[in-house]
Amino acid sequence: MKEKTDVLVIGGSAAGLVAAMTAKSNYKDKKVVLIRKEEKVMIPCGIPYIFGTLESSDSNILPDGGLLNLGVEIKVDTVTAINTEDKICKTASGLEIAYDRLVIATGSQPSKPDWLKGKDLENVFTIPKDNKYLDVITEKLSTFKNVAVIGAGFIGVEMSDELNKRDIKVSLIEKEPHILALAFDEDIAVDAEQLLRDRGVEVITGASIKEIQGKGKVSSVLLSDGRVLETDAVVLSMGYLPNVTLAKESGIHINEKGFIIVDEFLRTNAKDVFAAGDCAEKRDFATSKLATTMLASTACAEARVAALNLYKISTVRKFKGTIGIYSTCIGDTAFGVAGLTEEAASKEGFNFVTGKFTGVDRHPGKLNNPHKQCVKLIVSKECGRILGGSVIGGMSAGELTNVLGFLIQGSMSIADLLVAQIGTQPMLTASPAAYPLIKAAEAAAKNL
Amino acid sequence: MKEKTDVLVIGGSAAGLVAAMTAKSNYKDKKVVLIRKEEKVMIPCGIPYIFGTLESSDSNILPDGGLLNLGVEIKVDTVTAINTEDKICKTASGLEIAYDRLVIATGSQPSKPDWLKGKDLENVFTIPKDNKYLDVITEKLSTFKNVAVIGAGFIGVEMSDELNKRDIKVSLIEKEPHILALAFDEDIAVDAEQLLRDRGVEVITGASIKEIQGKGKVSSVLLSDGRVLETDAVVLSMGYLPNVTLAKESGIHINEKGFIIVDEFLRTNAKDVFAAGDCAEKRDFATSKLATTMLASTACAEARVAALNLYKISTVRKFKGTIGIYSTCIGDTAFGVAGLTEEAASKEGFNFVTGKFTGVDRHPGKLNNPHKQCVKLIVSKECGRILGGSVIGGMSAGELTNVLGFLIQGSMSIADLLVAQIGTQPMLTASPAAYPLIKAAEAAAKNL
Repeated sequence: MKEKTDVLVIGGSAAGLVAAMTAKSNYKDKKVVLIRKEEKVMIPCGIPYIFGTLESSDSNILPDGGLLNLGVEIKVDTVTAINTEDKICKTASGLEIAYDRLVIATGSQPSKPDWLKGKDLENVFTIPKDNKYLDVITEKLSTFKNVAVIGAGFIGVEMSDELNKRDIKVSLIEKEPHILALAFDEDIAVDAEQLLRDRGVEVITGASIKEIQGKGKVSSVLLSDGRVLETDAVVLSMGYLPNVTLAKESGIHINEKGFIIVDEFLRTNAKDVFAAGDCAEKRDFATSKLATTMLASTACAEARVAALNLYKISTVRKFKGTIGIYSTCIGDTAFGVAGLTEEAASKEGFNFVTGKFTGVDRHPGKLNNPHKQCVKLIVSKECGRILGGSVIGGMSAGELTNVLGFLIQGSMSIADLLVAQIGTQPMLTASPAAYPLIKAAEAAAKNL
Repeated sequence: MKEKTDVLVIGGSAAGLVAAMTAKSNYKDKKVVLIRKEEKVMIPCGIPYIFGTLESSDSNILPDGGLLNLGVEIKVDTVTAINTEDKICKTASGLEIAYDRLVIATGSQPSKPDWLKGKDLENVFTIPKDNKYLDVITEKLSTFKNVAVIGAGFIGVEMSDELNKRDIKVSLIEKEPHILALAFDEDIAVDAEQLLRDRGVEVITGASIKEIQGKGKVSSVLLSDGRVLETDAVVLSMGYLPNVTLAKESGIHINEKGFIIVDEFLRTNAKDVFAAGDCAEKRDFATSKLATTMLASTACAEARVAALNLYKISTVRKFKGTIGIYSTCIGDTAFGVAGLTEEAASKEGFNFVTGKFTGVDRHPGKLNNPHKQCVKLIVSKECGRILGGSVIGGMSAGELTNVLGFLIQGSMSIADLLVAQIGTQPMLTASPAAYPLIKAAEAAAKNL
């Protein structure tokens, strides 16, 4: 069967959703079709919470209302080939859809490295964005006493904390010296690590997994330091890989990191074909180097830029490079980071100083569930520009991380912060006289 | 007795504290003396909470540790005259302190208008930053059944909510059509008003106070619409007036609104004399008109700028005009505003559009005490710059208000927001696909 659309979006997760909604709401007279594999789409960042706080994957569905209300057509089907010459997509169900503009938002899938012996044993799981698989493993995981989680990035940490809430004994294994080591400097990461330990998760750092052992099903994991850890199940959270097979087979160029090559308007090499989200190339905001950041929020930003530029490109609607803006929480402590860490700035050869301040996120400090709040800034020595920052605090640290993100995106400097006005309120924020962001700026200024 | 100091700061509240600390930590070899009337200084924004959530004023003391640790000398005394020619201050205790640089941070006091008949009756109170007075009235207020609060600015609203927590029947009287009318547009203010009513506060709007009635002590208030409200006590929260008598009598120039005239470095007309905080002149960031904003956070920013410029002025350390960045909360709902409201932008003749979006501050929306989150943006039609914004949300709305503040201070525009990257996390923020700030920007973009 042959069909025709103006805009075709492949993929139904964060980037696909935002691309389709932005396209339809900015080009109202265009027909927009979103094609996706899944009947129900998972909220990607919510997935770890299925295993603890949320009851099931049903509480974590990305609603279709936004798409449908705008008039986007949703097809549940799989695109098997893109003919970029004739601008036609073929699907598994036998459809041929002619498009005028195409957005590839095929996302990513969990890495399950070939070298890992035992990876295909029973009770070895990954965390894909697939509600049926997730429902099965949620069920299974709840029957185990011991689970080993391999890889302490955000998903590994959140998974561990959630499984721990269900009274499973969790061992979290990380090859770096600390958990969340790629996102946070050591001084921040140790706090997160200690919290996780205090909550009962066994955290093993500086040891990688060598082999998963068992006959038919998992019985233990062998670590690089020779330790053998008995376990009922293994959750691999060893990163994600971009889904680019479809694009690659259609002649669309892929970069050396395995992502679809795009320009600042998110255009691929194929005419009228855009890519956005986890499958699309990233370049770091500060260094312009190729990056592998995968974040739903970044995906949404890219998708928005791609969709806005579908029919008319605009010089003010370019994607300016990826700023990793991450946050998470362990219990009632939140951790956030935006832009470069001290370690990354150092590794990249930036000439920089840091400033750090620890206060309380309420004033007086006894009011309304106060929490320690610590802000650390990484500042270019040359020009005083904010290169990055991180936060430890209560639940408001998530939005405070966004303050840091906008300081970076707005090219703001320490000089701007020293004269900056902030809003403070006893029940909501730190004191104006000891607001950690401003005090960290003062500390950095002294090092400039 | 004669003394000598390099830097003398008059006033111990937010501006005085920050001026002294910034001066001492940036000019280490200078002697810094802070002179204040109060033995113990109140955290200004915490004062309303003394009457409910906090047990007493003792929980709301601004600690002296920061000053003392840096080596600032504190004197409890009252400056009675400044000789700006000879650069000497005289005090009530008979001291003569010669200064090299002087910062006047004498603050403000509650307005008790002359025209208000009955204002001096027993049980008519104001809310000054004076712990002894506050202790007395906290004690007294707790013995009353009915209290009328006059004026529904932030202090009136917070006072009402706190007194209400102590099972006092509170009537809040506001002459404008809504509470918080000077800070928020009607669409935001009605939500705050409804919440306060739901919590049991009687809110009377569109009626001003004409007279306080009683023989010797308060028995009722007469409103402009003729109503007579029986009450045991009256709390006047009708605004604050800058304390400028000392400055005025010393020949320092005062503007038509009653504030000490200062330039962008916070310098007065008198040589080497600076002023900061509630007593110092404000000019609106957007309009450059004289303003009367009084905020501890603004005071701290001014004090920081004044202190940094004491001995060497810097072009990047100018105060660029006052942005009102306010937040408050009623129960578990927070309200915040930064910059111009729609009403103010309209009144000032700006050519602008608005954009508004309401979502949830967690994702999925069932996670971790979710709260409705609404963001409204006021955007210049000419250039797309953010002129102002407001937020309703959970506790994180306080820091989200600071995001708005930095968007304004960073001269950021709708174009910047449409391509902006944000950080999101299920337990901490709204979803990346429906982040109210970005969705409000999209809505505004459509109106541009």
